[in-house]
Amino acid sequence: MTDHFFFQEWMLSHSGRIEWALDQQLDAGKTIPHRLHEAMRYAAQGGGKRIRPLLVYAAGALGNPSLQMLDSAAVAIECIHAYSLVHDDLPCMDDDDLRRGRPTVHKAYDEATALLVGDALQTRAFEILAQADGAAALRLQMIAALAAASGSRGMAGGQAIDLESVGKQLDLAGLQQMHAMKTGALLSCAVTLGGIAAQLDAASMTHLQTYSEAVGLAFQIVDDVLDATADSQTLGKTAGKDAANDKPTYVTLMGLDYAQKQAEILQAKAIASLASFGDKGIPLKELALLVVNRGK
Amino acid sequence: MTDHFFFQEWMLSHSGRIEWALDQQLDAGKTIPHRLHEAMRYAAQGGGKRIRPLLVYAAGALGNPSLQMLDSAAVAIECIHAYSLVHDDLPCMDDDDLRRGRPTVHKAYDEATALLVGDALQTRAFEILAQADGAAALRLQMIAALAAASGSRGMAGGQAIDLESVGKQLDLAGLQQMHAMKTGALLSCAVTLGGIAAQLDAASMTHLQTYSEAVGLAFQIVDDVLDATADSQTLGKTAGKDAANDKPTYVTLMGLDYAQKQAEILQAKAIASLASFGDKGIPLKELALLVVNRGK
Repeated sequence: MTDHFFFQEWMLSHSGRIEWALDQQLDAGKTIPHRLHEAMRYAAQGGGKRIRPLLVYAAGALGNPSLQMLDSAAVAIECIHAYSLVHDDLPCMDDDDLRRGRPTVHKAYDEATALLVGDALQTRAFEILAQADGAAALRLQMIAALAAASGSRGMAGGQAIDLESVGKQLDLAGLQQMHAMKTGALLSCAVTLGGIAAQLDAASMTHLQTYSEAVGLAFQIVDDVLDATADSQTLGKTAGKDAANDKPTYVTLMGLDYAQKQAEILQAKAIASLASFGDKGIPLKELALLVVNRGK
Repeated sequence: MTDHFFFQEWMLSHSGRIEWALDQQLDAGKTIPHRLHEAMRYAAQGGGKRIRPLLVYAAGALGNPSLQMLDSAAVAIECIHAYSLVHDDLPCMDDDDLRRGRPTVHKAYDEATALLVGDALQTRAFEILAQADGAAALRLQMIAALAAASGSRGMAGGQAIDLESVGKQLDLAGLQQMHAMKTGALLSCAVTLGGIAAQLDAASMTHLQTYSEAVGLAFQIVDDVLDATADSQTLGKTAGKDAANDKPTYVTLMGLDYAQKQAEILQAKAIASLASFGDKGIPLKELALLVVNRGK
């Protein structure tokens, strides 16, 4: 059985599992207030690549954690990701009408509801981890890791730097720091959550750190490449927004060819960091390939 | 020494303590990104009555919890409260220019920053509890309680109901449910967090529940009375907004006299629920008096 064939099976089963887990862990639309809960489901269940949940499961596969604990971590991080997209799309931020090929939450509902949907999805993420299966100490570690990755020193902080950078000449180091916080921190956190659940040793966690930093950076470079080259329909969101907003990107700073080359170098680095895990690292390896090749 | 004199001392020491604890637990403005952290401090440190933190300390006084754990609970719940005010004040919600006598966050900074300030203050609340002093099981209980009180089945859900109620004829039961979620849940949670930290028995927690539900309801009735009777300068925020927005309030549904009478009945109920605590209940008793008398 080739790695890739094994991974196809793995993806199929875990892609189904995350949708099932999201459905289980989000309040039904019949919970009061109906409209808010319905809109939370609209935001979290509208498809998407589920890369963060898949990274949780893939890192978890390096040990033998309870599958329920991984489910909780996977849903929690996807709730954080979904909340950030809902707030990002608001008129005062990116002002986007389209997300994953559907109207954004503030278009499908209204701005105030979108604000509350994001707020409540964030809360739900921490609630799910607090109530997860497994040892209290592990749950607390996961909550602290998710908060650090998504708060003012992580994702939200990266957003703030992104806002300040519009129209400015950010250099490559500045762009890198912004992306490391804005998207890298949460991608890394996905891998960390899986590693915490699997109770990996310190050396393994260090390899995972190398892996996730390389994947996180590659992910963002590919995002910028896609924004510059793909059309809105392929992307499922409005293309060419960065150029239109005069935002610095890897493509504007490095050029298209160099950016693509960098993404491939980072992919190789990520895969090399998995050497000590043997076959257990196959899902992580294949996810790294997926992230970089998603535009192809 | 009278109860009231004792309480004056208690208030002085704990009012100082919460400001100190907030200062300790919020990132300094020199942390990157500077502007976001500065704005988070602007939002959380702009005064305010600190009723929720004081309730945490007052309920904690019924046992002998670690003071560091109470500090963390007090700061966490105030971060949640502050985040909710920042988001409430946004143009797509209440569109308020003034809060605690100062420009609201989106006026002092900008809308996008205000959105991120609220998001990051919420994250910080859960991070602080995850890293708090004390047993892991207690910290998880506090995180779960705070999430339940502030999420879609609590505060954020109450906001959503409030939005839907504008221009509608909400009856008294509907108004009560909305307020129980919108403001009552977080006030109750403050008392619960203190009780968890103090490891109170089930009977004591039930008394606290009675207390906090009565105080929470009284608090909201007094809020409506003040909105109808006080001016903006006294209030530190725009007065008469509810009437201007055609929102149902206890005053519009009950009339002013009956609303004031109800607040006093609830105050008496709250105080009666503290009977078994003896002198240890003095801070909670005096806080109930303070809540209902704050307009006088």
